[in-house]
Amino acid sequence: MVEFEGALADAQAELGAVPHGVGDAVRAAGAGGGLDPVALARRGREAANPVVFFVSRLTELVAAADPEAARYVHAASTSQDVLDSAAMLVARRALELLHGDLGRIRTALAALARAHRDTPAAARTLTQHAVPTTVGLRAAGWLTLASDAHDRVGALLARGLPVSMGGAAGTLAAYHDQLRTAGAAGDHPELRLVELVAGRLGLAAPEVPWHAVRTPVAELGAVLSLAAGALGKFAADVLVLTRTEIGEVVEPAAAGRGRSSAMPQKRNPVLSTLVASAARQVPVYALVLQQSVVAEDERSAGAWHAEWEPLRQCLRLTGGAAHTAAELAEGLAVSVDRVRANTALTGAGLVAERLSVALAADLGRTRAKEIVTRAVRGTEDGIPPVEALRLALAEAGCADEVSFAPGELLDPAGYLGAAGPLVDRAVRRAAAPPPDPGPAGPVPHEQHPPHVSEHDEDDEDSETADDDQ
Amino acid sequence: MVEFEGALADAQAELGAVPHGVGDAVRAAGAGGGLDPVALARRGREAANPVVFFVSRLTELVAAADPEAARYVHAASTSQDVLDSAAMLVARRALELLHGDLGRIRTALAALARAHRDTPAAARTLTQHAVPTTVGLRAAGWLTLASDAHDRVGALLARGLPVSMGGAAGTLAAYHDQLRTAGAAGDHPELRLVELVAGRLGLAAPEVPWHAVRTPVAELGAVLSLAAGALGKFAADVLVLTRTEIGEVVEPAAAGRGRSSAMPQKRNPVLSTLVASAARQVPVYALVLQQSVVAEDERSAGAWHAEWEPLRQCLRLTGGAAHTAAELAEGLAVSVDRVRANTALTGAGLVAERLSVALAADLGRTRAKEIVTRAVRGTEDGIPPVEALRLALAEAGCADEVSFAPGELLDPAGYLGAAGPLVDRAVRRAAAPPPDPGPAGPVPHEQHPPHVSEHDEDDEDSETADDDQ
Amino acid sequence: MVEFEGALADAQAELGAVPHGVGDAVRAAGAGGGLDPVALARRGREAANPVVFFVSRLTELVAAADPEAARYVHAASTSQDVLDSAAMLVARRALELLHGDLGRIRTALAALARAHRDTPAAARTLTQHAVPTTVGLRAAGWLTLASDAHDRVGALLARGLPVSMGGAAGTLAAYHDQLRTAGAAGDHPELRLVELVAGRLGLAAPEVPWHAVRTPVAELGAVLSLAAGALGKFAADVLVLTRTEIGEVVEPAAAGRGRSSAMPQKRNPVLSTLVASAARQVPVYALVLQQSVVAEDERSAGAWHAEWEPLRQCLRLTGGAAHTAAELAEGLAVSVDRVRANTALTGAGLVAERLSVALAADLGRTRAKEIVTRAVRGTEDGIPPVEALRLALAEAGCADEVSFAPGELLDPAGYLGAAGPLVDRAVRRAAAPPPDPGPAGPVPHEQHPPHVSEHDEDDEDSETADDDQ
Amino acid sequence: MVEFEGALADAQAELGAVPHGVGDAVRAAGAGGGLDPVALARRGREAANPVVFFVSRLTELVAAADPEAARYVHAASTSQDVLDSAAMLVARRALELLHGDLGRIRTALAALARAHRDTPAAARTLTQHAVPTTVGLRAAGWLTLASDAHDRVGALLARGLPVSMGGAAGTLAAYHDQLRTAGAAGDHPELRLVELVAGRLGLAAPEVPWHAVRTPVAELGAVLSLAAGALGKFAADVLVLTRTEIGEVVEPAAAGRGRSSAMPQKRNPVLSTLVASAARQVPVYALVLQQSVVAEDERSAGAWHAEWEPLRQCLRLTGGAAHTAAELAEGLAVSVDRVRANTALTGAGLVAERLSVALAADLGRTRAKEIVTRAVRGTEDGIPPVEALRLALAEAGCADEVSFAPGELLDPAGYLGAAGPLVDRAVRRAAAPPPDPGPAGPVPHEQHPPHVSEHDEDDEDSETADDDQ
Repeated sequence: MVEFEGALADAQAELGAVPHGVGDAVRAAGAGGGLDPVALARRGREAANPVVFFVSRLTELVAAADPEAARYVHAASTSQDVLDSAAMLVARRALELLHGDLGRIRTALAALARAHRDTPAAARTLTQHAVPTTVGLRAAGWLTLASDAHDRVGALLARGLPVSMGGAAGTLAAYHDQLRTAGAAGDHPELRLVELVAGRLGLAAPEVPWHAVRTPVAELGAVLSLAAGALGKFAADVLVLTRTEIGEVVEPAAAGRGRSSAMPQKRNPVLSTLVASAARQVPVYALVLQQSVVAEDERSAGAWHAEWEPLRQCLRLTGGAAHTAAELAEGLAVSVDRVRANTALTGAGLVAERLSVALAADLGRTRAKEIVTRAVRGTEDGIPPVEALRLALAEAGCADEVSFAPGELLDPAGYLGAAGPLVDRAVRRAAAPPPDPGPAGPVPHEQHPPHVSEHDEDDEDSETADDDQ
Repeated sequence: MVEFEGALADAQAELGAVPHGVGDAVRAAGAGGGLDPVALARRGREAANPVVFFVSRLTELVAAADPEAARYVHAASTSQDVLDSAAMLVARRALELLHGDLGRIRTALAALARAHRDTPAAARTLTQHAVPTTVGLRAAGWLTLASDAHDRVGALLARGLPVSMGGAAGTLAAYHDQLRTAGAAGDHPELRLVELVAGRLGLAAPEVPWHAVRTPVAELGAVLSLAAGALGKFAADVLVLTRTEIGEVVEPAAAGRGRSSAMPQKRNPVLSTLVASAARQVPVYALVLQQSVVAEDERSAGAWHAEWEPLRQCLRLTGGAAHTAAELAEGLAVSVDRVRANTALTGAGLVAERLSVALAADLGRTRAKEIVTRAVRGTEDGIPPVEALRLALAEAGCADEVSFAPGELLDPAGYLGAAGPLVDRAVRRAAAPPPDPGPAGPVPHEQHPPHVSEHDEDDEDSETADDDQ
Repeated sequence: MVEFEGALADAQAELGAVPHGVGDAVRAAGAGGGLDPVALARRGREAANPVVFFVSRLTELVAAADPEAARYVHAASTSQDVLDSAAMLVARRALELLHGDLGRIRTALAALARAHRDTPAAARTLTQHAVPTTVGLRAAGWLTLASDAHDRVGALLARGLPVSMGGAAGTLAAYHDQLRTAGAAGDHPELRLVELVAGRLGLAAPEVPWHAVRTPVAELGAVLSLAAGALGKFAADVLVLTRTEIGEVVEPAAAGRGRSSAMPQKRNPVLSTLVASAARQVPVYALVLQQSVVAEDERSAGAWHAEWEPLRQCLRLTGGAAHTAAELAEGLAVSVDRVRANTALTGAGLVAERLSVALAADLGRTRAKEIVTRAVRGTEDGIPPVEALRLALAEAGCADEVSFAPGELLDPAGYLGAAGPLVDRAVRRAAAPPPDPGPAGPVPHEQHPPHVSEHDEDDEDSETADDDQ
Repeated sequence: MVEFEGALADAQAELGAVPHGVGDAVRAAGAGGGLDPVALARRGREAANPVVFFVSRLTELVAAADPEAARYVHAASTSQDVLDSAAMLVARRALELLHGDLGRIRTALAALARAHRDTPAAARTLTQHAVPTTVGLRAAGWLTLASDAHDRVGALLARGLPVSMGGAAGTLAAYHDQLRTAGAAGDHPELRLVELVAGRLGLAAPEVPWHAVRTPVAELGAVLSLAAGALGKFAADVLVLTRTEIGEVVEPAAAGRGRSSAMPQKRNPVLSTLVASAARQVPVYALVLQQSVVAEDERSAGAWHAEWEPLRQCLRLTGGAAHTAAELAEGLAVSVDRVRANTALTGAGLVAERLSVALAADLGRTRAKEIVTRAVRGTEDGIPPVEALRLALAEAGCADEVSFAPGELLDPAGYLGAAGPLVDRAVRRAAAPPPDPGPAGPVPHEQHPPHVSEHDEDDEDSETADDDQ
């Protein structure tokens, strides 16, 4: 909120409406420790938002150092401009961290997928072993989700989150009067003001004020929800695969982590648990953001206010989940022995689909099914797969009718379809430069991306503001 | 589901794995009325999905006409391929209707915004009159939301919804064996098969199978949720503005609509009510879709199944809401008299912000506040605004210190800031060609857009398939 | 809706306001097939509810047989009275089925818990084997949840779902005028009318009309949500326990169920999958019902309308899940061999907590931890537990300091705490008669339970109405 | 958490398993400021819960003062016992505050309903004036919801929230071994331990451990969701009624509250806004609690962890909303003038239903409708209602056929049905003693209510513990 008030004063100074130096005075006052968050929270109840008291306190602090500057604090502005813009600044920083961690996850999962591109594993559908897959293809699925999340977060950042400036009811009227009174050029210098403030904050200038047009918040919620879900899928699989009976992967160890003092045999998958916990919450909190789009009037009595807490939780939990998932992805150990052992658990079962098709070609569907069922039952009774199939064929009297040697079809590694090339695709995408969403992409609103200004003379400032993004 | 099985057979025929004509036989069987939805629903419980029984019944129907063709129905395929692809076909058709209706809404709201670009109205924040706005700017807010929704739905359609083909566990192994056995060219003809089926259905070919990578469904939910919310905001405002005491807009009349036989004075805003009802539901149902991203294994036991009903409801309700909102937007009547009367309700109050600023410039904030408060109280007591302000200045003994004539600042039409240009922006955007999401846009997965084929010889087929979109 | 209109006419006849026989005419017309659901749905859009057209069509049908009776159809009533009362009738019937199925589940799970009261099993926390539990205690947890659900559904039924009668805006004014004009006794015969209609329908008479006081619907949603969650926990555990690698339970078999034609080795846990799918949806749909409590005015424009679909889904899905779960509970087979094998998987690990405590008493915590860690590692390397512990003690040089024989503490069956008595408690509760919620229990509103009338002469009718509950 | 560890040590001392004084040492250590919440939060990530580090830190602090006592901290316990019990303690305190505030709301709304029992007002349905109601009946609706919430919160408190004690996996095995080793009496002294700890904390002793049987948390969520919704309905109506154009109620004033420095004419309904904001969030957060019932294993990896934040938010927001709503209810001012003026807005319209019925009795439905429509149109054109009706009757040539004097039916105060008695009912209920939920009520589990002990010697302690509730 201090940053917004500072940037506002700077931009108003640039347009001649307030003296130079007010922005600096605001930032100095904000940095001084005189703004007590608890007091802001308590006093905020009086206005149903914390900005009214914040501005009053900030003005006092500025006045203590520079009484003249204090006259210009928050000039012509309104609570929602401050709070929404501040929320977008917080969101941008959180998204940048999230984007970085999603990038780490992508890199780690791409390496994992590549390393196990051709390691056969049992695919599980409806909890049961189905057909072979590879460890790499499983990782490629996680990777694809991470890439999806990474792309969407990246697109939001590239497009820029919008500054909020509308004045009391979205017309920018007070800014207009202020600037026109001060002799600012043009019929609508307030539109220029919006661009300047946006540029200074590294935010985008929206096409129209969004006090009651909440696409930016809803979309932020949707992207965070997707990101949390993507990480949640990864965690869900790790939780299955670390089960005592399955043991195909092990979470990275760290001193003391996941250990129980009373049960020294346990190593709890705490990283996946944290991610899973976040993934259960974020889409629900994001729902509040989706629902806040439906709000009456030029500023609603409740819907806007209901956004603050869930937005904070969505950013906090998704950011935390990504940070945790990055550590998980970078340190996840695959137990190839356990993978192999599990692959063998159902004997001929894991390739029964293949056998069915191959036999059906030679013997028709009905006989094929009968033989496969018999062979699978044999392996379940402990007969080695090749032998079990031979016996089943013999018993059915059709050993001579099949066009392949039984052993040929029983190796899981021989029934992997396009698993390899699919891994390659997912890995290639992760290595590619991020898609350029471009100015024409589907955007919350048709925003002017940050720092793309029609006025050349501002570029310098904008670039500077850019530096601290 | 019939269409998918038909397209699959056609594509397999094209690659030499099944005889030509199977696709036609499938479509003929499907069109014959022999597939009973109630039976599919009931028998579907046995497999926890309707496809198993569907395939068995479809095969019977094909066999009745062409026993040989029946051998190739659903060849090498799996339930999830059929159901997910069918869901995407349904979704695409629903999105096309939705996109059309959002376009109608945009056009109608753009006309409304233009027509009332400069009609002053009372802006309401936290339910209270705040400052002036315009009827046009209010409409421009609705328009911006409609444009946001239109763009996003359009982007989904332009990018193409993905066909689902993964085989039993996402490796395409059965398709691979089938095609290789049949002598299809290339190491991985199954990847070509995916493209062919996608092309025939007007769907996109996904980078990797998405049985357990549910971005496409989650994103569909997010877009429908946003669209429903956008329409819900429009409806929420119409519901406020049609209140008996407010009366600024009237829903389009139709014979009998919204009428109560017992209460002939009533005309219920039934269109807004229907839209509002949908907007309360869709984001919640879409939550199930977001949450289904978190699903264990190569095919989950429950999360996938939980998608079907809420996806249907999201499509149905959002589509219905858009259709209803189009009628509402096209017929919404503004009562300029009531708008004007409401604007006058608080006397000087509606421009009190302006007065405060103007007086503060001349007299300082404290005295300005005192005078404005006094003037507003005067108008609340029935004194005409100009007179009330004059009195307040006189009583405070500062009539000579102000630099403007009182009447000058009291006209709401003089305090509209950038309302006009902001309306122009929103209208201009609605008139512009839709943004081209391009292949680089943020996509559920890096999909090959439909009909963009690397193989020239397929273009003809694809174009044909395109015709019936 | 037909039943409500019939009961209303009957009760009005009893109070002398309409001729006898109208109720019968209404029911006859309703039974005649002339009410087309599709037409009701389509025409319902005109009024934003289906009742207006329903009444008009019903009146036509009555008029065709008895023009005089048609004059009294829906007399003095309103759409919301009809629709809410009809919804409660549907809900009551669905709850009765649900209650029956929850009873079956309780019985089956109590038998399962009893049968395996003392069968040791590995308890899993955060996916890892932790300490021993029993198959019975696990079932007792499911049972407790089923009992919780059964009790709450039973309490709703015992208290009675409320009839909805308020007239146009909750004052019952039209009913009042009608009855007073007809000479009905008392100052407020309309309150008596509410009781009579409630009694005839087997619903409760609410203290105040609930058009805009939606506790009954919200509470219905909460109970259904809890019931679905309770069943979902059962399904979640069955899904884990049926995993190929775990195999501790098997779903009941039925011809063709859960079988895959291509993968004959698979038996999919389809019953749990169906239950899990419902449990993912119901609490979300119930959220719409919770949120509909917040609705403006004497009848809201959207919130009421948003209840219809999710209430239907909650009833449908929870009822279906209970029916499915009853089959699951009644046929669930425990593989004691697999349970035992899994219990042994971690060797001394499963009783490491016990060892730690016992050793700590003799040797202090630090040395105890060291020895247990060593012993567990030994069993992980394949050394039999007793031997591993002996070795660990010897290596630490404290074999003589321990007060117990190593073997004594290593049997999982010896470390079950209160598992047995806890099972007994849960089983005892399931066998006990249901709690009597009584008239003083926490109720949606202070309702008059159905058929508890201040007027003796009505008891007979009420009893009759009761019969078909 | 400190309180739980203290009570556990006390109870273990009572049963002879730990020395007396450990509980006091624990409480002294906890009170000393050595437990840093930020450190707990940070270190909590290592174990995916804060208890492991908490216990380690608490033990250090105890050891610093009393090394011997430190040996017995957290003896035989487990993280979930500590965290769940602590959550229930926090919840109980929050519920007590909530219950008190709901009581205040009830008292205030009952007074409001009584005061305006017979003040006619316009009832609004689908935003339009419908028929007359009373200010009192509107308040009686809010009151009924407040009573519903008050009853349910009261029932939860009366029944007691459950202590959580299960040990590592719900069998109480470590407690069992500890107590048996110490020579505690009975086969299962651990069950006695649970009762003792519950008694000391003022919590209930659950029938079975609820680590994975989450009814208590789900039900807490459901009750808080209902309470928030009940308050939200009150706020929603206040927000409508305070609209500038409606003005029927005014929020209580307080220095500075709801005032805007720039717009001195505004008094924002900030109390309703805060309540409305909470009511939009709580049911959504409570959804996470409902969904956490579905959790795998004896302790889930994620579902349990996902409860903590939303439970906190539900308690915090509902408690805050009730506190705010109490102030709102106690200070809400009704503007009888504005109510009366609004009632007259539609002229004959507000009693059109009554006219229709009365005229239909004399003239049949068709002619009645025609006359009412004409009369309403007349009043809309400014003709006084009685005159308009007279004209309409005359124009239709049926002035002589009606059995009543026109003026008789046009007074809203004459068409209020049972509004008065319904108000009386709601007020009576609010004055009645709370319902006694009794031990037989529908309970999360069959809990032993707190302090109801089978052992007389504990009563004293329990009573003491009771004092600080």
